[in-house]
Amino acid sequence: MAKVADKSLFPKPFLIFFILSIIFGFGITLSEAGFPKIRHYKWEVEYMFWSPDCVENIVMGIDGQFPGPTIRANVGDTVVVELTNKLHTEGVVIHWHGIMQRGTPWADGTASISQCAINPGETFTYRFVVDKAGTYFYHGHLGMQRSAGLYGSLIVDPEEGKNEPFHYDEEINLLLSDWWHQSVHKQEVGLSSKPIRWIGEPQTILINGRGQFDCSIAAKYNNNLKQCELKGGEQCAPFILHVLPNKTYRIRIASTTALASLNFAIGNHRLLVVEADGNYIQPFLTSDIDIYSGESYSVLITTDQPSSENYWVSIGVRARLPKTPPGLTILNYLPNSVSKLPISPPPETPDWEDFDRSKNFTFRIFAAMGSPKPPMRYNRRIFLLNTQNRMNGFVKWAINNVSLALPPTPYLAAMKFKLNTAFDQNPPPETFPIDYDINNPPQNANTITGNGVYRFNMGEIVDVILQNANMLNDNTSEIHPWHLHGHDFWVLGYGEGKFSAAVDEKKLNLKNPPLRNTVVIFPYGWTAIRFVADNPGVWAFHCHIEPHLHMGMGVVFAEGVHKVGRIPTKALACGGAAKALINNNPPQDPRKRNP
Amino acid sequence: MAKVADKSLFPKPFLIFFILSIIFGFGITLSEAGFPKIRHYKWEVEYMFWSPDCVENIVMGIDGQFPGPTIRANVGDTVVVELTNKLHTEGVVIHWHGIMQRGTPWADGTASISQCAINPGETFTYRFVVDKAGTYFYHGHLGMQRSAGLYGSLIVDPEEGKNEPFHYDEEINLLLSDWWHQSVHKQEVGLSSKPIRWIGEPQTILINGRGQFDCSIAAKYNNNLKQCELKGGEQCAPFILHVLPNKTYRIRIASTTALASLNFAIGNHRLLVVEADGNYIQPFLTSDIDIYSGESYSVLITTDQPSSENYWVSIGVRARLPKTPPGLTILNYLPNSVSKLPISPPPETPDWEDFDRSKNFTFRIFAAMGSPKPPMRYNRRIFLLNTQNRMNGFVKWAINNVSLALPPTPYLAAMKFKLNTAFDQNPPPETFPIDYDINNPPQNANTITGNGVYRFNMGEIVDVILQNANMLNDNTSEIHPWHLHGHDFWVLGYGEGKFSAAVDEKKLNLKNPPLRNTVVIFPYGWTAIRFVADNPGVWAFHCHIEPHLHMGMGVVFAEGVHKVGRIPTKALACGGAAKALINNNPPQDPRKRNP
Repeated sequence: MAKVADKSLFPKPFLIFFILSIIFGFGITLSEAGFPKIRHYKWEVEYMFWSPDCVENIVMGIDGQFPGPTIRANVGDTVVVELTNKLHTEGVVIHWHGIMQRGTPWADGTASISQCAINPGETFTYRFVVDKAGTYFYHGHLGMQRSAGLYGSLIVDPEEGKNEPFHYDEEINLLLSDWWHQSVHKQEVGLSSKPIRWIGEPQTILINGRGQFDCSIAAKYNNNLKQCELKGGEQCAPFILHVLPNKTYRIRIASTTALASLNFAIGNHRLLVVEADGNYIQPFLTSDIDIYSGESYSVLITTDQPSSENYWVSIGVRARLPKTPPGLTILNYLPNSVSKLPISPPPETPDWEDFDRSKNFTFRIFAAMGSPKPPMRYNRRIFLLNTQNRMNGFVKWAINNVSLALPPTPYLAAMKFKLNTAFDQNPPPETFPIDYDINNPPQNANTITGNGVYRFNMGEIVDVILQNANMLNDNTSEIHPWHLHGHDFWVLGYGEGKFSAAVDEKKLNLKNPPLRNTVVIFPYGWTAIRFVADNPGVWAFHCHIEPHLHMGMGVVFAEGVHKVGRIPTKALACGGAAKALINNNPPQDPRKRNP
Repeated sequence: MAKVADKSLFPKPFLIFFILSIIFGFGITLSEAGFPKIRHYKWEVEYMFWSPDCVENIVMGIDGQFPGPTIRANVGDTVVVELTNKLHTEGVVIHWHGIMQRGTPWADGTASISQCAINPGETFTYRFVVDKAGTYFYHGHLGMQRSAGLYGSLIVDPEEGKNEPFHYDEEINLLLSDWWHQSVHKQEVGLSSKPIRWIGEPQTILINGRGQFDCSIAAKYNNNLKQCELKGGEQCAPFILHVLPNKTYRIRIASTTALASLNFAIGNHRLLVVEADGNYIQPFLTSDIDIYSGESYSVLITTDQPSSENYWVSIGVRARLPKTPPGLTILNYLPNSVSKLPISPPPETPDWEDFDRSKNFTFRIFAAMGSPKPPMRYNRRIFLLNTQNRMNGFVKWAINNVSLALPPTPYLAAMKFKLNTAFDQNPPPETFPIDYDINNPPQNANTITGNGVYRFNMGEIVDVILQNANMLNDNTSEIHPWHLHGHDFWVLGYGEGKFSAAVDEKKLNLKNPPLRNTVVIFPYGWTAIRFVADNPGVWAFHCHIEPHLHMGMGVVFAEGVHKVGRIPTKALACGGAAKALINNNPPQDPRKRNP
């Protein structure tokens, strides 16, 4: 039931121009002339039977599609999504990952933060401007609904008539995810159980929602799995990359995995990386890219290899024990048949624990020439220690020993209307004990839950030092991709061990640090970011590994909430906000006839 | 975390008495003197791993218990349940089945009807008076959360110092249910899929939440199943009925099955039926009882059988093809060991399609002497035709060709605040075409969905003729137990075929019809009920088979909503009610300091 309409905006000055253009018979419409448009979608979210990896299950789909429909817009356009919740008992929200939401913080789609979850049967209208070209995506942001399959692509092209700063002939869009056979409801119960039942590694890697469980389309190179028997029309049939020889293709790659860190490679083809998280970067060539949950890249490939062959596209697991077979598909040089298998085996995923290789890739990412430069100084620096902890026998993730437990009243409403009992008014700690030993399990593993907010002054320049540490078990420290809502940040640097201002300060890159919305911390290392707190609203900053967030691995930032305009009523109709705002009197005299 | 407190109520006249009693040193407390109490519970609802039938699954539990804790109160007491929703993404409500909710229609616990669902993390306080002794229960009333295990017992004793009209030494409480291994989320998706995927028969019958899958505790009499190996401490170990010889026991039996119609029997013991749905009935002896979902009975047994033996309690499926083995447990004559198996096999459940036998049982139920008698005439008579239908390829159940689709705004709020767009203001049809052929599949099987309301004048005497009919397939018509909220009704009679006023009117029992809150319609038959619409509120009337209600098999009644007092804010914070009632202005000046 997707209804997509392109409606031109008619601000008054343009209206006059428009009327004049009719009078004078210019013969062009506004949309052809490159004026901003409204990209209007009406979506229904519901569970449906689906076989993402050839095993039937239920997925959370939109309008009968999985993944959800792709949104496509130009810079300056307004995206309007009327989202109807057709689930029977669950609320729902959708977060537009990478979109800044300037002026529309209530449209950020984070339950408990920017809005009340949309109740079953209700419709909430997201309305926001897309202001930067790039490769984005959207996904659920309540419970583990992203893991349940609620996601899709959001692509922003430059304003009409403007070009990208690199040339390509065609583009291909890939949204990567991971998939479990156990329902997210059971996964959630396991994570919240005592003792914890960890979700384990995914069964399957999905490329545009398609993967193959317990078989391989490259079985002839792999004697562990049997050959998949697919006709091509199945929901799990691979998404084929059809290309023509001697062209340049932009491949957009975004990862919305719940857990897996991925490596992307195409047999025989080198990748020119040109975009990261909707920001242009200094192009560099690589054989493969590492992509963490929450990140996106564009790579250019040239189809200059022998055109009588097809080539593998391989997406393997890194940074965790790779118990999941790689996701595979075919780069199909037309007019070859898709069924013509490549002559060589699929590119091999680099060793999962070769973090030096991962760092090598990550450290090559710099802002493109002409990108906004970071302020040279910060106003405030916050240290966020990432630890795995215990709490009354439950396993939690905590930041500076506080495990985030989201409140029922959305922060945006609570702060705007000064509902001071809706969350802890004491700010959470801005650092951790100087003698904390990041190389060993926490000495006192007990954490507390909390829901305090880091409040920034409007325009404040904030540094965050994300500090990784040892987990509960000896000799383990994991990758965590941190995603910031409402802002891009400059990635100033990465380092080993504990951040030391004396030693590390001068190593920070203030010259050409890349702008991102997601950044990784490596095991036992630190990552330094800088951003300007200039977007009025309340914003999540969290590990993008969904079960980690579910276990408390996030913080809440806020700035300039007093500047936020009218919030849609439906974003307020829950918790303390509803209680404070509902006038429990009839809107009219109730004594008139009524049954 | 259940906190149970007995607090005496202190209405003013009693307060004076209380003060006087202190002054004069009566030395008794009010609760000892039999004054109404407050029965206070604090509950948390959450999913948890559980093995109801020895197969691990997730159940919806309360405070770590499944079934939920038993509420016990005396007539006149106020029950207060502070219910906190600890689910991650789902709303929740609890319906107090059989409680009239006079003056508290917002506490009836029906999502979309009496209140907004309680959001994750939020607490809603149910507060209501129990005004009639009897065997009741409570259960979820959103989506299929009852099937998920959200239920428990609610027992109301007479006022302290008053006796039941029959004698017994001890009592035993049994809550019966049915259990599927497929999650309710998948069940719901199947019911709403095209083509439908029917949930099928339950895997297991549970007695107080306990059953045994794929084994039998009576295997030695049954060579189809292996012997269960149970030590007795398992979550699935049978609930044993411990009794002493030569005593009289009241056994309370309530059925909250999602689907199954049950038959209850105890080897060697006859049952004296004394109560039905919280109403005393003319006692009658029977070898077994049929009990439909939503019904409750009390039976008295005398433990006058050879005391060196134990006896079977057997609960089998009736009215549908019995693909589920009977639920079994032991009537354990103390001091015999529980492990001493009865010498005879368990009582055999009567043939599932012997409806004459079922009717025979049902027709023996009459009101006890002294029960309220029905008014001799009705003001309004509504005919409700029960049909299975199709709608755009979906399978639905419909009443007078309208399949109920509940709106996001609760009716109680919508009617009280005259939100006329919240539901269809046109009343649904009060009858069906006179020539409708109930003996064949519907000629035009297409139905529509609707959400209109049958509105009654306060005090109106309403007859409802529930008319059964053939389903979509030839030669099939099923049992449906209809449950009315907020009222008991008199069951005036049952008949075969289509109700005909000319023939059937005079057969109606106006002398001693039983009062019930749930009544069955037999295949191809009709059932006539009468009630007085004297309870201000909005009330569901529906088939108590949960997937049938989910597929639209219900109607909504309303009366005297203008007399309803202040509704708790949290019952209003959704849908059109929230929109109409939220004053989207800050409760105080927002320009003062704010981050």
